[in-house]
Amino acid sequence: MAAAVILAAGMGTRMKSSLPKAMHPLGGRPMLTHLLAAVSAVFDRVIVVVGPGMEALAKLAAPHATVVQEERLGTAHAARMAAPLLAGYAGDVAVLYADNPLISEATLKRLVAARQEAGLAMLAMRPADPAKYGRVVTDAAGDVQRIVEWKDATEAERAIGLCNAGVICAEGPLMLRWLDAVTNDNAAGEYYLTDVVALAAAQSRCVAVEAPEAELAGINSRAELAASEARLQGQWRSAALDAGVTLLAPETVFFSHDTVIANDVLVEQNVVFGPGVRVESGAVIRAFSHLEGCVVRGGAIIGPYARLRPGADVGEGAHVGNFVELKATTLGAGAKANHLTYLGDASIGPGSNIGAGTITCNYDGVNKHRTEIGAGSFIGSNTALVAPVKVGDRALVAAGSTITEDVPADTLALARGRQTNKPGRGFRGKKK
Amino acid sequence: MAAAVILAAGMGTRMKSSLPKAMHPLGGRPMLTHLLAAVSAVFDRVIVVVGPGMEALAKLAAPHATVVQEERLGTAHAARMAAPLLAGYAGDVAVLYADNPLISEATLKRLVAARQEAGLAMLAMRPADPAKYGRVVTDAAGDVQRIVEWKDATEAERAIGLCNAGVICAEGPLMLRWLDAVTNDNAAGEYYLTDVVALAAAQSRCVAVEAPEAELAGINSRAELAASEARLQGQWRSAALDAGVTLLAPETVFFSHDTVIANDVLVEQNVVFGPGVRVESGAVIRAFSHLEGCVVRGGAIIGPYARLRPGADVGEGAHVGNFVELKATTLGAGAKANHLTYLGDASIGPGSNIGAGTITCNYDGVNKHRTEIGAGSFIGSNTALVAPVKVGDRALVAAGSTITEDVPADTLALARGRQTNKPGRGFRGKKK
Amino acid sequence: MAAAVILAAGMGTRMKSSLPKAMHPLGGRPMLTHLLAAVSAVFDRVIVVVGPGMEALAKLAAPHATVVQEERLGTAHAARMAAPLLAGYAGDVAVLYADNPLISEATLKRLVAARQEAGLAMLAMRPADPAKYGRVVTDAAGDVQRIVEWKDATEAERAIGLCNAGVICAEGPLMLRWLDAVTNDNAAGEYYLTDVVALAAAQSRCVAVEAPEAELAGINSRAELAASEARLQGQWRSAALDAGVTLLAPETVFFSHDTVIANDVLVEQNVVFGPGVRVESGAVIRAFSHLEGCVVRGGAIIGPYARLRPGADVGEGAHVGNFVELKATTLGAGAKANHLTYLGDASIGPGSNIGAGTITCNYDGVNKHRTEIGAGSFIGSNTALVAPVKVGDRALVAAGSTITEDVPADTLALARGRQTNKPGRGFRGKKK
Repeated sequence: MAAAVILAAGMGTRMKSSLPKAMHPLGGRPMLTHLLAAVSAVFDRVIVVVGPGMEALAKLAAPHATVVQEERLGTAHAARMAAPLLAGYAGDVAVLYADNPLISEATLKRLVAARQEAGLAMLAMRPADPAKYGRVVTDAAGDVQRIVEWKDATEAERAIGLCNAGVICAEGPLMLRWLDAVTNDNAAGEYYLTDVVALAAAQSRCVAVEAPEAELAGINSRAELAASEARLQGQWRSAALDAGVTLLAPETVFFSHDTVIANDVLVEQNVVFGPGVRVESGAVIRAFSHLEGCVVRGGAIIGPYARLRPGADVGEGAHVGNFVELKATTLGAGAKANHLTYLGDASIGPGSNIGAGTITCNYDGVNKHRTEIGAGSFIGSNTALVAPVKVGDRALVAAGSTITEDVPADTLALARGRQTNKPGRGFRGKKK
Repeated sequence: MAAAVILAAGMGTRMKSSLPKAMHPLGGRPMLTHLLAAVSAVFDRVIVVVGPGMEALAKLAAPHATVVQEERLGTAHAARMAAPLLAGYAGDVAVLYADNPLISEATLKRLVAARQEAGLAMLAMRPADPAKYGRVVTDAAGDVQRIVEWKDATEAERAIGLCNAGVICAEGPLMLRWLDAVTNDNAAGEYYLTDVVALAAAQSRCVAVEAPEAELAGINSRAELAASEARLQGQWRSAALDAGVTLLAPETVFFSHDTVIANDVLVEQNVVFGPGVRVESGAVIRAFSHLEGCVVRGGAIIGPYARLRPGADVGEGAHVGNFVELKATTLGAGAKANHLTYLGDASIGPGSNIGAGTITCNYDGVNKHRTEIGAGSFIGSNTALVAPVKVGDRALVAAGSTITEDVPADTLALARGRQTNKPGRGFRGKKK
Repeated sequence: MAAAVILAAGMGTRMKSSLPKAMHPLGGRPMLTHLLAAVSAVFDRVIVVVGPGMEALAKLAAPHATVVQEERLGTAHAARMAAPLLAGYAGDVAVLYADNPLISEATLKRLVAARQEAGLAMLAMRPADPAKYGRVVTDAAGDVQRIVEWKDATEAERAIGLCNAGVICAEGPLMLRWLDAVTNDNAAGEYYLTDVVALAAAQSRCVAVEAPEAELAGINSRAELAASEARLQGQWRSAALDAGVTLLAPETVFFSHDTVIANDVLVEQNVVFGPGVRVESGAVIRAFSHLEGCVVRGGAIIGPYARLRPGADVGEGAHVGNFVELKATTLGAGAKANHLTYLGDASIGPGSNIGAGTITCNYDGVNKHRTEIGAGSFIGSNTALVAPVKVGDRALVAAGSTITEDVPADTLALARGRQTNKPGRGFRGKKK
């Protein structure tokens, strides 16, 4: 039994943003959501400390509890905001930072396990360049004594490679007592969370749990955010390759945290997978395609230049070609929509062929309406289907038609002007 | 006179694929085809050893002969499958692996030349990290004695930097005799091709021909496939730059093995050249364009977001603009198709202007038909041309028309509804 | 008061181009224009030396003066071409090369300042690999004595790390005198600008101003051009991140020299900013978008796959969606054009909705015409608007219409064929 307090009240000055830092996107979701995925897998109770006016962040944190730190008096002060919600809580309490979003579930489990053998456990790392970090001072047995900030450290202390990663874990009642004991007797007049370590060490054993810098590196600027994103993408690309996905140019493929791609999928260059995508084995995702919230079934061919939006479901062996957009649309097995088409709020039966330039007029300016097309139909090119409308099985719609009424099965529908040729009135072009 | 036996029977467990490893794509063609290009330039006879059920691979290997290794009893066993086709063959025989597809023609020529001065010649390399490779044990004179697998090697042998690349070459009759002499007296019970080296060394001189790791690195996983692809792309980008092609961002341009681009072509960011593309001097390929099987003539401007499919031929000074697709279509000199257009199975005369949203309805659900447009014509926007159809020189097609009948030269064609305005029935929008 | 002479007469053999080297593109403008931006900020007079037949380059250099070097007799000879225009000029004169386009304004200011304390000031660098550069020989006091070309240098001289960057600055009359004194008494029979240094050093103090290799590296090939472009892009990406712009994948975003992006703009993967783009705070530029010469206002959402061409002005909170092109078009606040649309020479009022597949027919083959759409209108999908045409406020245009006449406010316009269904004539598909 353990609770986590996540400090997310900061705006992050270096982000130069009006958005709370914890809401910036990472791997296709906000940084806080990313961290919460790992945290909520390990801790059975989570409290997020937000700043004043951060309603959107609180909403994002739901269903986890949030408390507001009205004044910014330091990280220990922020953690203390969670105290009322932890009154009487006997389990362990960990304090984390929202701007350390890459910490893995495994590392958090090691932290909690280590706490069983000490009064306080903390995360530490050995960065390639430790210069700016607080150093973890240990005794001869390797137990942690205190954290010394770089600016206060002696030469000998600066030579220590083990650095503070900011995350601590202790028994709840003790954590609350130590948080209360932290003072703001320092240059900045702030209550520092790091001071808890010395307080704990004076009373009990403190241990450091080491994890890779890549997991513990904080995000304080857009450049660091981009670097963290790149690290995640690199991991996801490697995982996809290992799982039997072909990436013609891995560095040009972008995944989200929940992308699911089976083996023997071929992904060409410059493909973006937004959140919520599942691709079955044998599908081909061609270059310059963009997928979000959709399913691509086996043997389907997507793109190049295809855009699948949420609710798109592309059937087995179906084709979605260039400059084609699907939204909330089911494309049946073997159906084709190969060129310059918009299908929104539609269902297309198996084996139907949607001609180039077909457009479902699903929006009348107020409401969305559905288009239903049966199996084995042929929709001629440059057709507009004014929804709500149904086109039956094996129907044939003539090219250039605007379809406003249902077309029964086995029926030909035409809705276009008749051609007139006027000799002698051809194109004269520019005067020379 | 020399023959090559290419071992291509493996599925490649680490590929996690239902596709034979040799069929995975590299530089715009299957790995085997890539290797065959170099091999068939040096060897006058090629035999490909495939696995059972690999008909598609055998077809890919054609016109080269294929033999099937029904049971997987090791690499020497696989090579032996070619013996019936080499009966009485007096020339040299080399054995290669399909998963070493980057070996260059020049290296193969050096291998064959080296065989003239020894009983057996083999390819070897000095990898940056030799850890996993078999080591090539040489005598004081530098001649090869045997190959020792890493797991069987002594500390001293593991210190050897020269590693086995798997490719051997010997006189045909000797090669067949040595292959027959290989036993499966080892832990795995397999017949290893590497054992040929010791057998040969016992009877004659064996020499190692060194080549760069980049050429000899094997492909055993999708990650290694991606790394080999990246290496090829890097070579092709450098070659294009050296030949006088401007690449605004070389790392975002992808070539195929047969891309031909003249000097003074400007290629913007994010361009994919599929197989079979030729671009003449002075053309501009703008960002986000995708070209396959097409010709772009001097001074033409392609893209951004243009897709040229097989059979597209873009004339001198012609323009193909954004969200425009051409398939099996000739665009005459100076003609323009600048926006949201699909031209399939069409010929467009010089100087004609194809309006935005024009679509050739080339497919009736059963057959493809042609659209022919003359010179100096003007096709109004949002026009559908229902093929087969001919539009003469200097014809003018009114915007929004669906053209189902031929339009003679110098003729205006209209095929659209007449406009009616109904006052008081405008758009009311959403209820507030 | 100082003048700059820029040597731009070279074709650059290694460029393999019919375009003068100084005209090749860098950061969205020609190399010469790039250099001129820095030079004209520091020097009040600029003379560009071009080669014969380089009228286009001279035009590019305007309003700066140009002189033609008819014969290619060396760099000192080229610089001397500017002498007639500098007759009687008493200020400092610097000589620069057009193929050193990355020199910063700050470096040029340091050069001019250094000249105040010496007879001649020159730019020098300490390249990571100095091998090929001429070495700057200095005396014990650090003053420059001469430049020795690598091929003429002794072992001791080759060990010098300080290399010549080619740029020199001296008082005008002295510079002209020294240029005249340079001889062509060398293997190539050319007049070398570097010889000025020794001539100056014999008469006065010469000082070297050091600057980073990245600024001073010359561009002699397309590969070096690409490397310089990459360096610029890297700088611009870092600057954008520091300024509070989110780049999901910085390495896939390409800026131009004059791109202006406010903080809290989100730029997704694969976005190209051509010249002349300004994006206001809070806008989102989605993946695969291409922007040139346009303004995107706060809260607007662009893309994915949007193309904004010169003259596009996207209002606050407006949306430009996939496969949509805007040219010389104002999209009012909150207006939407989300799918497969071409808007050229148009103005769209606030809150209007432009349906999928809408096309403004702005070109009649001879002239361009305007389309004006009022506020709160709804243009149905697959509509062609034949310009010149006006659609009033709150107008409603039915899907599939070709609009050739004005539509007054609050009016419904229809211009399409009526639908006919013909039972029993449905689609039969391919014969099995």
